[in-house]
Amino acid sequence: MLTTLLQDPATLLLPKVHSPEDIRDFSLPELNQLAQEIRDTIIHTVSRTGGHLAPSLGVVELTIALHYVFNTPDDKLIWDVGHQSYAHKLLTGRVEQFASLRQYKGMSGFPKFKESIYDAFETGHSSTSISAALGMTVGKSLGQNGNKAIAIIGDGSMTAGMAFEALNHAGHLNKDLIVILNDNEMSISPNVGALSSFLSRKLTGKTMRRVKNHIEERLTALSNVGENILSVLKKSEESFKSFFTPGMLFEAFKFDYIGPIMGHDYEELIPALRNARDNSHGPTLIHILTTKGKGYEPAEKNPGLYHGVGPFDIETGTPHSSNGSPSYTSIFGNTLCDMAENDERITAISAAMVTGTGLAGFAKKYPNRFFDVGIAEQHAVTFAAGMATEGLRPVVAIYSTFLQRAMDQILHDVCIPNLPVTFAIDRAGVVGDDGPTHHGVFDISFLRYIPNIVLMAPKDEDELRHMLYTAVNYNGPTAVRYPRGSGENVVMKKELQLLEIGRGELLAEGDDVLLLPVGNRVYPALNAAAKLKEMGFQAAVINPRFIKPLDANLILEWAQRTDRVVTIEDGAIAGGFGSSILELLATRGLHTVRTRTLGYADGFVEHGPQRTLWKNGGIDVPAIVRAALQIMDKDPNIYL
Amino acid sequence: MLTTLLQDPATLLLPKVHSPEDIRDFSLPELNQLAQEIRDTIIHTVSRTGGHLAPSLGVVELTIALHYVFNTPDDKLIWDVGHQSYAHKLLTGRVEQFASLRQYKGMSGFPKFKESIYDAFETGHSSTSISAALGMTVGKSLGQNGNKAIAIIGDGSMTAGMAFEALNHAGHLNKDLIVILNDNEMSISPNVGALSSFLSRKLTGKTMRRVKNHIEERLTALSNVGENILSVLKKSEESFKSFFTPGMLFEAFKFDYIGPIMGHDYEELIPALRNARDNSHGPTLIHILTTKGKGYEPAEKNPGLYHGVGPFDIETGTPHSSNGSPSYTSIFGNTLCDMAENDERITAISAAMVTGTGLAGFAKKYPNRFFDVGIAEQHAVTFAAGMATEGLRPVVAIYSTFLQRAMDQILHDVCIPNLPVTFAIDRAGVVGDDGPTHHGVFDISFLRYIPNIVLMAPKDEDELRHMLYTAVNYNGPTAVRYPRGSGENVVMKKELQLLEIGRGELLAEGDDVLLLPVGNRVYPALNAAAKLKEMGFQAAVINPRFIKPLDANLILEWAQRTDRVVTIEDGAIAGGFGSSILELLATRGLHTVRTRTLGYADGFVEHGPQRTLWKNGGIDVPAIVRAALQIMDKDPNIYL
Repeated sequence: MLTTLLQDPATLLLPKVHSPEDIRDFSLPELNQLAQEIRDTIIHTVSRTGGHLAPSLGVVELTIALHYVFNTPDDKLIWDVGHQSYAHKLLTGRVEQFASLRQYKGMSGFPKFKESIYDAFETGHSSTSISAALGMTVGKSLGQNGNKAIAIIGDGSMTAGMAFEALNHAGHLNKDLIVILNDNEMSISPNVGALSSFLSRKLTGKTMRRVKNHIEERLTALSNVGENILSVLKKSEESFKSFFTPGMLFEAFKFDYIGPIMGHDYEELIPALRNARDNSHGPTLIHILTTKGKGYEPAEKNPGLYHGVGPFDIETGTPHSSNGSPSYTSIFGNTLCDMAENDERITAISAAMVTGTGLAGFAKKYPNRFFDVGIAEQHAVTFAAGMATEGLRPVVAIYSTFLQRAMDQILHDVCIPNLPVTFAIDRAGVVGDDGPTHHGVFDISFLRYIPNIVLMAPKDEDELRHMLYTAVNYNGPTAVRYPRGSGENVVMKKELQLLEIGRGELLAEGDDVLLLPVGNRVYPALNAAAKLKEMGFQAAVINPRFIKPLDANLILEWAQRTDRVVTIEDGAIAGGFGSSILELLATRGLHTVRTRTLGYADGFVEHGPQRTLWKNGGIDVPAIVRAALQIMDKDPNIYL
Repeated sequence: MLTTLLQDPATLLLPKVHSPEDIRDFSLPELNQLAQEIRDTIIHTVSRTGGHLAPSLGVVELTIALHYVFNTPDDKLIWDVGHQSYAHKLLTGRVEQFASLRQYKGMSGFPKFKESIYDAFETGHSSTSISAALGMTVGKSLGQNGNKAIAIIGDGSMTAGMAFEALNHAGHLNKDLIVILNDNEMSISPNVGALSSFLSRKLTGKTMRRVKNHIEERLTALSNVGENILSVLKKSEESFKSFFTPGMLFEAFKFDYIGPIMGHDYEELIPALRNARDNSHGPTLIHILTTKGKGYEPAEKNPGLYHGVGPFDIETGTPHSSNGSPSYTSIFGNTLCDMAENDERITAISAAMVTGTGLAGFAKKYPNRFFDVGIAEQHAVTFAAGMATEGLRPVVAIYSTFLQRAMDQILHDVCIPNLPVTFAIDRAGVVGDDGPTHHGVFDISFLRYIPNIVLMAPKDEDELRHMLYTAVNYNGPTAVRYPRGSGENVVMKKELQLLEIGRGELLAEGDDVLLLPVGNRVYPALNAAAKLKEMGFQAAVINPRFIKPLDANLILEWAQRTDRVVTIEDGAIAGGFGSSILELLATRGLHTVRTRTLGYADGFVEHGPQRTLWKNGGIDVPAIVRAALQIMDKDPNIYL
């Protein structure tokens, strides 16, 4: 299948490409061969490493054409989201490192300054590229060096408000900025929103032709009967509405519009890019049509599945199976479906991550109560707040890292008015291979200071169910944070139970030290307690369940009894759960209790397997045992 | 001037209006008289209390017409930002309370659930209304009660990405939502952005007429000479570009468009609103033209100044003078101007708050290095990040409360790539009369956990200058937070000084207790130390200058020496500066140091004068003395 990888190595082009300069005198057949080699390399590598396959396959020709036409790295390419940058990495001197894609200590799946001078901006979250490119353009224009900044943004990313803010400002500034709209008619989930249907409505050009024909007919009629032009225009109102082209929309924002261009055809791509390079004055948008997953049949057929994929079998496309435990994500989705059957108030909201958040089943079962708002976390939250004022119980499911976008809305639109909106925070804690832009290690820090919110974290997949049930039935803002990956394979209680707000559970008694783990750190803490017991120490273990409000009585009772506390969280130490325990002890004047807070130190966590990151972060079983020994003034070197 | 207030009370209408129902059979002259009485009441009250005068005066007729036509409170009015809701408050049973507007324990300047069932959504920050109204509409449509939700949003608020996200989703959902675009051609500062110029370009209708005439001429020519229609269309390209109307733009988002409507004329307003009420299916946008400050000449002439204004003289419009100390805001603006003269890398960015953030002078002096991006905090930050990659040193000036909107961009686009962007955070701490939606009490909590950022707070207006200088010359992300209001009237050092990053200053030595105040709490702490001295206690006082990174050595030295620490901040305790001191002590294993953290407890702070809120919050001089005595185990009742 990956024919070029079986070729005589001497005939291969990619190994000879050390920088984009090496491709600038390639012939058209050579550019086509290069595209095939890049595709094969990407498919081959991602089949082993996992990664963002479909987005990267979709922009192979576009990436080649950009480096072919523009004078990179002096001209700057800003890859929105950055998950489509694999071809860019292969063209910019990283063929050999490519095998280490997303591997621990290997190459990042996103653009990184430290990897290459060709990585002009670091991305990961969506819809930042136009803002960044506009800022660069202003920098260049102040510095007068004449180079260009080129933002490459998908139609999905275009639905985020931030992209609109940038378009609006770019039109106003009128600088030489180039925006490439990579239109594949879907973001991670199929796009939603009026803009999206508007774009796709026009892609074929059929509508445009239809409208022109329609107007032509009307005008012919006019010249025949002498009808008043204005009344014709009025009658043509419907035509007028559909008279828009995407170009006219962007032209309303004062962009020059070029397109649509077929994005896998160099003979369309290269002249269009050259034209923009040489003739554009002021902001220019090039509308390019691409196919997500292009060149790999399974990915073309199911671009959603192959958007971000684990290792898979190249011949069949079948993903290699993971372990059998159900994921937190699927438990969330199933539980919400079950609850919705008996509670008509429940609605669910996703920001363009329907499958990723486990809501596909809900969407299918309750289409009228499910809302995919696009990549629009801000709107998602306030939209939910509006629903809550009308008696509904909306559940907003967003990954921890993306929820950062909606912090103001959570505080201002949900928590100040104290509305019953539930945040289902998936991917809380380190997420693994996607790295620092995607780890969910800050949500405790950015939520727990907000008044009125009830913040929970389940120790296992069964507790998640009861927390969700508790959240939706609480008359105020709630959030449940849970990690990426599989649960603990525990037996599920059939009946959903209302947990008492602010009540933790004592899992083990002990007088030597109190272990206070949050969420996915509870079982490791229990294991650590077992190990400590073997060493002759009695550790109490409390699952606080509620990060806010804390079960102050239970925690203080055992903190005083042990005089030594170790907190453990899959999150940043600064402002995190451990910090809230320190505040509690200080507020209550318990100055004699020694406390050690385990979590991520002040710095961004690299990419790598979750277990490795937990170990490096000092929150795995050995680290907990070590911290407990240290706080008891025992030398870990003797015991470990 | 306020003629209706001098009238025979028996002839007044407003005192008889206890709910909107009371106006629904008013005649046109009565509605006009009512508008005059409402205007006079607003001007009279705000001249004493201060408040958002110009926005509220601009929507008097619109507010009356909305309550006249719609069946409030079953139909819901959502006032975007909410600062224009004074007439709404007067019409909904709050005439008597109106005198207490923005006064401590009095009526809020924004819609509040607890004030009235007519306040359908709590607002304060901009651009939330369409999202909320759409959420309500979904709630209503699920519940089938048939009422409407009506968002009233200014053209300035329309520039925020969140509004775009909501429009995009609303067009997709196709529910019966009504959006009133209150177009006064300015937000707080005059609008920027392509959308704005696009809207204003069309307001007069002249362009539309011009284009229609132009096309008519072409068509006449066509019928005369038989020219091909497509070539005509091509030649008319420029006309076609300017053929847009605001209506067509919104129609692209699948809204029905009504307008533009003269917003001070009931004979246009009432039929348009009735039409929307009775005939709209799917989302409808009514474009209404209003004049900010309408009916009060000084405000009409200078709507920027009277957007939010302190007490003023009604006859002349002259604001009553405040004390003579320069404000932090003006010191910031002047210092940045001075620095920019010698450092060409410096640029300044505002999100539609040019005057409020003190940047009007900079904008005038350095128009090419100044950027007002509109109400677009997200874009502002990433735009700055783009500039920073090109060697510039952008300074983003945003109020603390509005910076919440850009938390993700600060973390993801500035701090992960470690770019030299400076955040000038004005209005940090409680802001006073605007209340909980506007207090800047969370910025320490939402910034200090972010790796790489350097976070400072000046003790006085002179230190602000050196911090700003230090920030701009540091090669990474920096933020300086400073309060609303006047400085300490200190002597200014002429020469700007580079502060050592992470180095605090010891202001007083003492062995009994260490006071650790932040920013505007430093002088109160020094006063508290003086009072403690009178009582016979020696308090050390450290101005940390850097909230992050902390001067660990200096703080730990004195913490150990005194064994008792009181932290004081004009901010939330949870996750705040005090919390970072607790973390520091825990990390270093200093378990014997007793610590008390003063700041706002877990809850939203009400509105009122800053001094009152500082007192209530327990961060004024007496509170510091009391906390110090308590932590030294002295009974405050004996000493105070």
